[in-house]
Amino acid sequence: MARGDDSFEEIDIAVKAIIANVRQNGDEALLAYTKTFDGVSLASLKVSEEEITEALETIEPSFLTILKNAKDNIREFHQHQLEKSWFVKKGNGIILGQKITPLKRVGVYVPGGKAAYPSTVLMDVIPAIVAGVEEIVIVSPPNKEGKVNPAVLAAASIAGVTEIYKVGGAQSIAALAYGTKSIRPVDKIVGPGNIYVARAKKYVFGTVDIDMIAGPSEVCIIADGTQNPAYVAADLLSQAEHDEMAASILVTDSEQLALDVQVEVEKQLKVLERNKITRASIENFGHIFVVDTLDDAFEVVNEIAPEHLELLLDNPFDQLPKVRNAGAIFLGAYSPEPLGDYFAGPNHTLPTSGTAKFSSPLGTYDFLKRSSVIYYSEQELKNVKDQIIQFANEEGLTAHANSIRVRFE
Amino acid sequence: MARGDDSFEEIDIAVKAIIANVRQNGDEALLAYTKTFDGVSLASLKVSEEEITEALETIEPSFLTILKNAKDNIREFHQHQLEKSWFVKKGNGIILGQKITPLKRVGVYVPGGKAAYPSTVLMDVIPAIVAGVEEIVIVSPPNKEGKVNPAVLAAASIAGVTEIYKVGGAQSIAALAYGTKSIRPVDKIVGPGNIYVARAKKYVFGTVDIDMIAGPSEVCIIADGTQNPAYVAADLLSQAEHDEMAASILVTDSEQLALDVQVEVEKQLKVLERNKITRASIENFGHIFVVDTLDDAFEVVNEIAPEHLELLLDNPFDQLPKVRNAGAIFLGAYSPEPLGDYFAGPNHTLPTSGTAKFSSPLGTYDFLKRSSVIYYSEQELKNVKDQIIQFANEEGLTAHANSIRVRFE
Repeated sequence: MARGDDSFEEIDIAVKAIIANVRQNGDEALLAYTKTFDGVSLASLKVSEEEITEALETIEPSFLTILKNAKDNIREFHQHQLEKSWFVKKGNGIILGQKITPLKRVGVYVPGGKAAYPSTVLMDVIPAIVAGVEEIVIVSPPNKEGKVNPAVLAAASIAGVTEIYKVGGAQSIAALAYGTKSIRPVDKIVGPGNIYVARAKKYVFGTVDIDMIAGPSEVCIIADGTQNPAYVAADLLSQAEHDEMAASILVTDSEQLALDVQVEVEKQLKVLERNKITRASIENFGHIFVVDTLDDAFEVVNEIAPEHLELLLDNPFDQLPKVRNAGAIFLGAYSPEPLGDYFAGPNHTLPTSGTAKFSSPLGTYDFLKRSSVIYYSEQELKNVKDQIIQFANEEGLTAHANSIRVRFE
Repeated sequence: MARGDDSFEEIDIAVKAIIANVRQNGDEALLAYTKTFDGVSLASLKVSEEEITEALETIEPSFLTILKNAKDNIREFHQHQLEKSWFVKKGNGIILGQKITPLKRVGVYVPGGKAAYPSTVLMDVIPAIVAGVEEIVIVSPPNKEGKVNPAVLAAASIAGVTEIYKVGGAQSIAALAYGTKSIRPVDKIVGPGNIYVARAKKYVFGTVDIDMIAGPSEVCIIADGTQNPAYVAADLLSQAEHDEMAASILVTDSEQLALDVQVEVEKQLKVLERNKITRASIENFGHIFVVDTLDDAFEVVNEIAPEHLELLLDNPFDQLPKVRNAGAIFLGAYSPEPLGDYFAGPNHTLPTSGTAKFSSPLGTYDFLKRSSVIYYSEQELKNVKDQIIQFANEEGLTAHANSIRVRFE
């Protein structure tokens, strides 16, 4: 079922005006928008060292330890995604290869207010650091006191980022893409944001690179009849609490489990804090598919291409090859989705809304780029020159042919 | 220097109308646009087997052989870019990994008319085939006789694609993204096209994936005083003949070479077939930078981030580490850029207009996607459950905490 619609005309008009204003008026425009949208007049956009120290002192030491443990796990996982330059020799004087270079400067958008998640700071920053990006900059809207959320500052500091600006919305995306006096432009912008941020990112795509534009979150759970309905229900609800547009979907071959899960969902819903959001999500986009066989379940799931997929099955590793489209796959009864959100190490920035059909979790590879390398000796070029000259002539590009020919005249 | 401008408002209005019409009226809209824009009334959009056979018979056998040799080189290079799923064990019951899956269905746009390049067919299709994409479909506008360029059909057939539709422009991008009765939707669209195609690709990005939006082409050549000015001039001109917006740039530490190359450019220009386009490009966007040292040359080039970079230097391999931003790097006097356009194996679809700062050549990796895999045993989840519960509570996501807690109650 489609969630949301793709008509953003009014938002796009506003976003384009904001971007044009920032390109023209730079920091002045940023400060004016911050006053209008965030309700605070700032003297300076940059978060000071003192503010970062202050934030670290505000945070409970036990939580700082957890953030550090999470960081270690995230770093370790993302190191497996590093790529190396390679070169191959061919013939008698041909070398071909691929040179890997990290991006130089990257911007990370971190939402403010209630959606300020330190876990997202870790997940967006650490892959860039592992890739070897030299400069990582965070933008995040300030609160009415002109401060960035302390948990965000603490996570940034633990991850290793100290260049942080108090600016949000489409205006911050414009600053990152085109630069202002305070904020030098970046090569790539990542991180989640509201619809203005998302549309601004789409607008600047091409001038800079962006990560995928995130839609509402979703989980699919494939569970057989042997599974504990309380686990299934809890996992569906954990996804649903994100947002009224979130989708929680169970696919099972057991009618009994389908019934039991519904009872459990009702029971657990009653005691949840984010009860209203969670109930709205479950009622609007929650769904249970009862299928004949587990193979049918995988067919349904591959068509949905969910952000998160849990395989609550007896033999999840045996079934893994059947998964074609999913952002992250959680295997077995003790790998619930929140384990991946916070702690296990793989990234929680994942393709949503079916885009797992063609895209990947955020990873180290998103902060690396490749250059092809070509070397031919005189003799090896001579061996193939007539073929290249004919090919170029066939395409009507005779100066291309000439560039080969001139070397053998 | 900026080339072109980024104001596409009128084009975008036209493109949105075309896309909306195709989404609503499907094949009927495609056929109507083909009549309007390509001047031909088609009975069927699909290229028949007979038409492909006919095309293969039209092409000179020696050129078919060259296409096959180029295909072998391209395939061999792109096989080095294949990625494998990996899994790692941690602790006493943790398995983390990354599952690699090819995209299922990919669309390749191939321009018609004079810009119909069989080399581009090979370069766009072969990486998808190497990646394991099951279904590859080509769209290309027909000529007034209702035929697709025979060299394009021959290259498609040699590369292994037989699902080809006679439709171009923004309408073909809409068909590939949203599907019609004749053309099922794809997961990703690649390939160059005019500004309508480029804007349509940007519009549908998110519904499907796209490759980078190509701007005008460019080459930078770093050459020292020992180089043959005739080679340098020929290589600058081969880039310039593409298009009046193409940019050919020499960066050298030798004033003498700079002077000699200018003489050679004039001399060679006179006898080139695409003289007018080439001269316009050289006059508008051709440039020679004379720098004090080669290190300065690399600084200039890394700022330009050219699509193609030639290192016409005595010791190009020693200098290679200084290259940070370039799509493809050609080393030494016998590796001119046309070698890479047609034959050597690396892709000729490269990041243009400075986007080599953050993006890569088209490659096998563009047709693969990753899914994270997470498995924790009961004991391993128990070891970290309190940390995850506290983290979730800190972010105010108590249903996330509950999904962990319920497993140990």
